Amino acid sequence: MADFIGFDASRREAELVLFGVPFDGTVSFRPGTRFGPEVMRGESWGLETYSPYLHADLESFRLHDGGDLELPFGNTGRVLELIEERVRGIVGDGKIPLMLGGEHLATYPAVKAVLERHPDLCVIHFDAHADLREDYLGERLSHATVMRRVWELLGDGRIFQHGIRSGLQSEFAWAGAGHTLLRPFSLDCLTADLQAVGDRPVYVSVDLDVLDPSVFPGTGTPEPGGVSFKELLEALKLLRGLRVVGADVMEFSPPYDPSGISAAAACKTVRELVLAILSS
Amino acid sequence: MADFIGFDASRREAELVLFGVPFDGTVSFRPGTRFGPEVMRGESWGLETYSPYLHADLESFRLHDGGDLELPFGNTGRVLELIEERVRGIVGDGKIPLMLGGEHLATYPAVKAVLERHPDLCVIHFDAHADLREDYLGERLSHATVMRRVWELLGDGRIFQHGIRSGLQSEFAWAGAGHTLLRPFSLDCLTADLQAVGDRPVYVSVDLDVLDPSVFPGTGTPEPGGVSFKELLEALKLLRGLRVVGADVMEFSPPYDPSGISAAAACKTVRELVLAILSS
Amino acid sequence: MADFIGFDASRREAELVLFGVPFDGTVSFRPGTRFGPEVMRGESWGLETYSPYLHADLESFRLHDGGDLELPFGNTGRVLELIEERVRGIVGDGKIPLMLGGEHLATYPAVKAVLERHPDLCVIHFDAHADLREDYLGERLSHATVMRRVWELLGDGRIFQHGIRSGLQSEFAWAGAGHTLLRPFSLDCLTADLQAVGDRPVYVSVDLDVLDPSVFPGTGTPEPGGVSFKELLEALKLLRGLRVVGADVMEFSPPYDPSGISAAAACKTVRELVLAILSS
Amino acid sequence: MADFIGFDASRREAELVLFGVPFDGTVSFRPGTRFGPEVMRGESWGLETYSPYLHADLESFRLHDGGDLELPFGNTGRVLELIEERVRGIVGDGKIPLMLGGEHLATYPAVKAVLERHPDLCVIHFDAHADLREDYLGERLSHATVMRRVWELLGDGRIFQHGIRSGLQSEFAWAGAGHTLLRPFSLDCLTADLQAVGDRPVYVSVDLDVLDPSVFPGTGTPEPGGVSFKELLEALKLLRGLRVVGADVMEFSPPYDPSGISAAAACKTVRELVLAILSS
Amino acid sequence: MADFIGFDASRREAELVLFGVPFDGTVSFRPGTRFGPEVMRGESWGLETYSPYLHADLESFRLHDGGDLELPFGNTGRVLELIEERVRGIVGDGKIPLMLGGEHLATYPAVKAVLERHPDLCVIHFDAHADLREDYLGERLSHATVMRRVWELLGDGRIFQHGIRSGLQSEFAWAGAGHTLLRPFSLDCLTADLQAVGDRPVYVSVDLDVLDPSVFPGTGTPEPGGVSFKELLEALKLLRGLRVVGADVMEFSPPYDPSGISAAAACKTVRELVLAILSS
Amino acid sequence: MADFIGFDASRREAELVLFGVPFDGTVSFRPGTRFGPEVMRGESWGLETYSPYLHADLESFRLHDGGDLELPFGNTGRVLELIEERVRGIVGDGKIPLMLGGEHLATYPAVKAVLERHPDLCVIHFDAHADLREDYLGERLSHATVMRRVWELLGDGRIFQHGIRSGLQSEFAWAGAGHTLLRPFSLDCLTADLQAVGDRPVYVSVDLDVLDPSVFPGTGTPEPGGVSFKELLEALKLLRGLRVVGADVMEFSPPYDPSGISAAAACKTVRELVLAILSS
Repeated sequence: MADFIGFDASRREAELVLFGVPFDGTVSFRPGTRFGPEVMRGESWGLETYSPYLHADLESFRLHDGGDLELPFGNTGRVLELIEERVRGIVGDGKIPLMLGGEHLATYPAVKAVLERHPDLCVIHFDAHADLREDYLGERLSHATVMRRVWELLGDGRIFQHGIRSGLQSEFAWAGAGHTLLRPFSLDCLTADLQAVGDRPVYVSVDLDVLDPSVFPGTGTPEPGGVSFKELLEALKLLRGLRVVGADVMEFSPPYDPSGISAAAACKTVRELVLAILSS
Repeated sequence: MADFIGFDASRREAELVLFGVPFDGTVSFRPGTRFGPEVMRGESWGLETYSPYLHADLESFRLHDGGDLELPFGNTGRVLELIEERVRGIVGDGKIPLMLGGEHLATYPAVKAVLERHPDLCVIHFDAHADLREDYLGERLSHATVMRRVWELLGDGRIFQHGIRSGLQSEFAWAGAGHTLLRPFSLDCLTADLQAVGDRPVYVSVDLDVLDPSVFPGTGTPEPGGVSFKELLEALKLLRGLRVVGADVMEFSPPYDPSGISAAAACKTVRELVLAILSS
Repeated sequence: MADFIGFDASRREAELVLFGVPFDGTVSFRPGTRFGPEVMRGESWGLETYSPYLHADLESFRLHDGGDLELPFGNTGRVLELIEERVRGIVGDGKIPLMLGGEHLATYPAVKAVLERHPDLCVIHFDAHADLREDYLGERLSHATVMRRVWELLGDGRIFQHGIRSGLQSEFAWAGAGHTLLRPFSLDCLTADLQAVGDRPVYVSVDLDVLDPSVFPGTGTPEPGGVSFKELLEALKLLRGLRVVGADVMEFSPPYDPSGISAAAACKTVRELVLAILSS
Repeated sequence: MADFIGFDASRREAELVLFGVPFDGTVSFRPGTRFGPEVMRGESWGLETYSPYLHADLESFRLHDGGDLELPFGNTGRVLELIEERVRGIVGDGKIPLMLGGEHLATYPAVKAVLERHPDLCVIHFDAHADLREDYLGERLSHATVMRRVWELLGDGRIFQHGIRSGLQSEFAWAGAGHTLLRPFSLDCLTADLQAVGDRPVYVSVDLDVLDPSVFPGTGTPEPGGVSFKELLEALKLLRGLRVVGADVMEFSPPYDPSGISAAAACKTVRELVLAILSS
Repeated sequence: MADFIGFDASRREAELVLFGVPFDGTVSFRPGTRFGPEVMRGESWGLETYSPYLHADLESFRLHDGGDLELPFGNTGRVLELIEERVRGIVGDGKIPLMLGGEHLATYPAVKAVLERHPDLCVIHFDAHADLREDYLGERLSHATVMRRVWELLGDGRIFQHGIRSGLQSEFAWAGAGHTLLRPFSLDCLTADLQAVGDRPVYVSVDLDVLDPSVFPGTGTPEPGGVSFKELLEALKLLRGLRVVGADVMEFSPPYDPSGISAAAACKTVRELVLAILSS
Repeated sequence: MADFIGFDASRREAELVLFGVPFDGTVSFRPGTRFGPEVMRGESWGLETYSPYLHADLESFRLHDGGDLELPFGNTGRVLELIEERVRGIVGDGKIPLMLGGEHLATYPAVKAVLERHPDLCVIHFDAHADLREDYLGERLSHATVMRRVWELLGDGRIFQHGIRSGLQSEFAWAGAGHTLLRPFSLDCLTADLQAVGDRPVYVSVDLDVLDPSVFPGTGTPEPGGVSFKELLEALKLLRGLRVVGADVMEFSPPYDPSGISAAAACKTVRELVLAILSS
């Protein structure tokens, strides 16, 4: 498999290390995000490395593509361990991990490993769904519970959720009680939240379904009424001032992307996110 | 087939009764809306019952899913009779009918049956197409003539058409002569029209192709330049003050929806429409 | 194959002549635009001839559909000659050529032939991509170099590029040095540019991927962050004051358009473009 | 739309006249055969006109493509009348009609019109389904009843059914009582039946689903266990000795043919059938 | 969801109970069999209940459709327990369980539960793959190891494998050492094996990929060179003499069945298998 | 991109070298074979390296995957030169070249380079089409003329064509005049022809469309009535006695293979062909 375009540095020299998590094991409705990383790599070659939005180029940075994790299907616990180990290794080398999903549950072990090194970590979370359930059909480890699990690691007031437009009434209520800072429907509150974050270390988690399904059909649970690609571009630009120590781009499901526009949106999101993180 | 999510009341206790019309018999160009109701029901389970837009939940209401009509293909006259009978029965029980299409011609017998009970009925019509032809290829009963047939029932000034962006020059002229209130291109005039409606009983007919094809590709005659999903959400919110006595959501055609985003938009439209009607 | 809807005049009486270029021979990534003209013709019959935007109707004009060129696959040089000959013939008869692509390289011989007759020609170029490379993988004749080749014909300051959001850093720099007037990201600068054009003859080249991929997924290199269909409609309206002597609508690739919304957008673009040109 | 390959004679000079019936109005399960004739014509250009099986070439005969009937959707009775009229016209001119479907019900009016001229007509019927129901969901005119209706015209012992592998127990029993000569599962009994037919005039009706779904997936009711394409070729060869006065090739449904192999099989069946009829 | 056609008896009165296992959790290559049972039920209504091959009708028997198991995705151990419990319940009531897959690993707990009641159980196994690995990527519970796990329950000489055409060299060698009776490539040895089985109780496991991919494309690991549908029909007929106490039909994956022919083959296999079991 | 399964030797140590030709530049009808080599490599990992047919394993041999040629689209002459150079290099190192297509025209430069080293070369050609035209739409270098071009290199009586079932009458006649040994419809004459070849060096060219479209839908010009996969397997087995010095497997077109069965057939053909060549 080809590397992601512009990711041609060695592991040793890299400042940022990308890796893929081809896992969708807790998804019951529409699987397929397991194919996300591989398709993104291939389609990234239809993209330029240069961003006219940020006047920056992937080729100006030392970026490494560490390939995909090999994961035992059917054994969720072991999958999460392997993700945690990989992130711990990257962070331990003083590099920034960038994870490509795969399902959103993978964010939980990734945050866990980053948190060991950065105890005052905040999380910026872009998503259509709150992901704040206590459990999902009896299982505590699920794509629908991931931000609740992350909250258990971080505690109140350190998770900033933007673009949320779907959840149980109880999830909205629980967030509203002060556990997370849930900004529904748009990305309009991001500037204010970033000021609150200040210079604390940040993990950025992008569930691509924050985008409107017209822009990004290729996902397991499309939720109409999302943000446009231009709105996401503007939001990513704002990240330039932050101290980002880890990030992910999740939930691209190729089987629901017959025309390839979701792959293009996912790849361009990766490019802009990386350039925003590194050119800050 | 599963019921639509949140529609778990019995027929007797329900205040609103949903039913499907798997019919696309007068469509020559791209058939497929016959599969609409069945696919919507299945996909509705990817939706939450709670609306963060309206702070309301389908589970707070008594809703019944009456299943699909069994229709004789090839016999249009009989199909229209069966629809009319079904709606007459629901209205006769003092309940609100909500029809899932199927092609738009089905709105004609539905309005007819509601009108018997509510002689001062108005129609709010969301659509890309004027549907005001006198006939289509010689046939008076056609998806392209439905609002002309409805006008024959209601007369001038009682049909409000929003989002229209396609038709013959003569259809626009005919509407402009005062027969219907045709508001082209957007939903911006809705507030004013709703004031004009006042507390008269209203039938709301949503042809989902009022949405832009990027948001709702799954339809027989996609017409670029439509409204966004957020714009439709805002319009549905405005209905809360109305006295809605019947409604339909039409023209979803699964064969043209490979990624499932149209199904999601259709289901969410049903949820918001029902909550707007009942929480008013 | 049916003619494009509304194009029922004879060659002799026509004021505007449409023809198709079923060619995608220099495309390595995702071929398919060779099928564009044929699919557009078929799908045009789902469109009305009347435009409610321009209050004009294709049936009011004398329009001819000259069919598709027969092109020898594998012989790029000969293909370009055949296109040039066809355009030269149409222009020589005092008619306006409208080319349906096919890949964008075809614009080069078309402009060449129009330029012979109109030496002070300007080019209005709508596109996601700058297309200003000197060569692409060693080949000077490529879809990625076409505007550079056109510039070699016209010289500095006569190409107006709108909506551009992808290219090499060096392409943006080269344009910025005054060779072309490159307006990135939107169509907002069009009014000003059209004033600069004044009454000089104009060739309008629409690469349909200027549209956002949500609106127009059916293309070889989807580039998120494009303009909406309404924005393109507004831009086309502005062309009414111009003296357009040639035009093309390029890069529709049916294999990437499973739901048919790109075909609809392409056909409606043709209708609005033709009406804007002729009703000016 | 292009003519079927090799069908370039005028109506007047032709010995055989092809026409299409884009109708699937009585089909409830999987519509789509309405698109059959158009797709067959387009795909026929991937076929050679020469048959190495029969050592014969379409170009050696005078064949006319009369295009598709224009049919009013939603009005089955009128559709059947229009088919009958067309066939009557062709037969009246002393030519052989070849109908491309469309759904199988169209065979009924076609046989009716041929029978007027040839009162001792026999029917050779290739199909997976017996099509012998008295009615289908209450409708007497249906794709599932067509051979029962044809029997009402012809009476006992004049319909020879080959390849049948699906039906109600009562259909098999009714046929077995001597009404039709139903040969299940294979085409092995064809030689014997053709001897029984002798020099009587014959109408050949090919429901393409007689082929195994592996060979011909593009149909509304795929029935595994069918004949191979080579077996059908052998059967068609046997027709050379017959006096065929009418024929049809029915039930190709392009929406279920994503790879195009059914279109190729349908076109090749038309070629071999025509050559067998005319070179006899 | 509708029941499988012809399965309209109550649980209590039924002699055979069908249930679905929407599980593909250990599959890494091409998931999708989780959708198998639901799609089979829907498509079964395109099938007749009568078999002209066996002169028997599903309506003559008391058959119950118990619906799909609800399974926790991501927890393989719990999934296998739930399957085992369901089969134990059915067998405990003296009825025959018929499981629809879902992935083949589900056969392991099903056989386990049947074996408790029938200690001298034999297994007839139709498959393209030997499924005899000791482990797969370190996991002992996998679709690729299922027959090895079944062998651990039954011991040597009680598993008869037919149609096998893919495996490791070591799997063929291990089988050849007498552990299973592996008959490669065809079903030709079935008659002899059934004589060896005699009147012992039998579990029949049909991995549908024993069919050639031309007949049955809808599966996760298509293996060319398989048996035809007619050959499978003949094999199922032979089962009529056996004492079948449990059965399954596995590995139908709807995402790889765009034309629906695999669904048709799967449903017809179920019909013929049930009729063979019960009419013996 | 991953290497083809089992091809893990270095170039230096290899006895056989595979490479891909992602070229379909002369194809006008249905392009897509350019994607063939890449998809085959990916899908090869769904295949075992062991062949139970030949009792041999790819892992027993030294095989190298040299990747794909980088080809300039739009420049056919240069493409053919690059192929010829690559083959000349492999042959010059005393290794066997195995080319994966891509379109069949690539066989011409490959044979040319092998012939330099082996002047008494014969060609075994499996195909549905004769490919013996003098030119195609005026072009002498085309997928439809390739065997005529190869004949110009070799002369009469050294090309053995099997499975041919399509061509112009004149192609069959030209072959029949003794230029090539054309065996129509089946592979039944192969044994006799291989005896005629004796121990002369042989180039084996497999156009995969020799297979029936049911088995191999993924190709540009499907031709019903082809051979089964088992028949091709038997034919490949027969090659074991030959002195094969070059080979190719051509014309797999992924866009026409929605279910992936063609990819599986192509990969298995490569495995069996390589094992037959090397285990002889």
